[in-house]
Amino acid sequence: MKIPAVIPFKPRNPKTRLSCVLSQEERERFAMAMLADVVEAVRGGGCSPRILSTERFGFEGSGFRGAPVTVNPAGLNEALNPILAGMDGPCLIVMADLPLLTPEAVRLLTGTHMMVAIAPGRGGGTNAIYLAEASRFHVDYYGASFLKHLAIARQFGLSCEMPDSFRLHTDVDEKEDLVELLIHGSGESRRFLDDLGFTLLIERGRVGVARNSGPAG
Amino acid sequence: MKIPAVIPFKPRNPKTRLSCVLSQEERERFAMAMLADVVEAVRGGGCSPRILSTERFGFEGSGFRGAPVTVNPAGLNEALNPILAGMDGPCLIVMADLPLLTPEAVRLLTGTHMMVAIAPGRGGGTNAIYLAEASRFHVDYYGASFLKHLAIARQFGLSCEMPDSFRLHTDVDEKEDLVELLIHGSGESRRFLDDLGFTLLIERGRVGVARNSGPAG
Repeated sequence: MKIPAVIPFKPRNPKTRLSCVLSQEERERFAMAMLADVVEAVRGGGCSPRILSTERFGFEGSGFRGAPVTVNPAGLNEALNPILAGMDGPCLIVMADLPLLTPEAVRLLTGTHMMVAIAPGRGGGTNAIYLAEASRFHVDYYGASFLKHLAIARQFGLSCEMPDSFRLHTDVDEKEDLVELLIHGSGESRRFLDDLGFTLLIERGRVGVARNSGPAG
Repeated sequence: MKIPAVIPFKPRNPKTRLSCVLSQEERERFAMAMLADVVEAVRGGGCSPRILSTERFGFEGSGFRGAPVTVNPAGLNEALNPILAGMDGPCLIVMADLPLLTPEAVRLLTGTHMMVAIAPGRGGGTNAIYLAEASRFHVDYYGASFLKHLAIARQFGLSCEMPDSFRLHTDVDEKEDLVELLIHGSGESRRFLDDLGFTLLIERGRVGVARNSGPAG
């Protein structure tokens, strides 16, 4: 049986720190493009993706790219922990804003010999967690959640490792993060930026992004 | 024979973007602590470190942590390319500001089956390059050097890959980068920050760093 991969998703007004370069409607489309990239990478890595959305976004009946969608407006921890508690076996939790994710990076997590494998995000967050026995763990997102998740694994006596992957590490929150996507991305979210006219901009030796037109919102 | 690993180093007034939290004298000590971590990781990864310094910093005769030191005030490309041209075999070039580097991450590069392996830095830079035949390549640092190095490999018909490692990806330039070192570091540069009273600071869900005392300079 494939490992279930839960992908939390916020369809409405997401990624507000990108408001300087993307309108709300564009941010919502961009978030969906990143979600599509994550779904594809997760599936390529041998997992079965399911989306946990904070609200309806039009794919509740049909599924999004073949992944079933559950809606729960509760906070991340409140929505995820009952799911974990009810599971009988392994689970992967992957954030929806990892557009550089590859099947190989997913397998770095699911192929661990430990009970828990945690991929830290930039700034101390948690981008993905693999749990060999989901019901023995609970999540505690927000703030320096990477350290909190290490502590939870220790508290419950679960062996734990941190796979070394920049593709798992690179979450997209700010304008500067778009540089990584323009350099290393190849999926839908990269094409989305290309279509809007985003390009790399090199000024005084530093690399940034420029957009040919302003936000449309 | 061990693979030579050239580590470019700027001992004087380095890391100016850290001036907001470290005095010049502290930045110089911090750069040396990071250099020590890189030297140790490189050696642990089976390479023979040698330091290419922009000026004298007191270790020219004795070597720094057992690594010979050459001084060349020329720019990075001007100093490195004649070295590469004169080499008969492989070479690794590693930046001195990668305090999270591990022997395993070094081996990800040197273990490649390609002619070239490039580790990108955040923002399109190049943190490390492994060259199976150093004399067939030349470097072109500054700006989006990762893309320039990919193009040079293509131009010379050299097979090329990009190993996926967040430890190779994480260069320390700005205050926010210190968060990564405080969370994931374990070497001299981490201890240096600890000794100065740096700690993680969590404010409104975001993780930053705080220092118990101001810059001493």
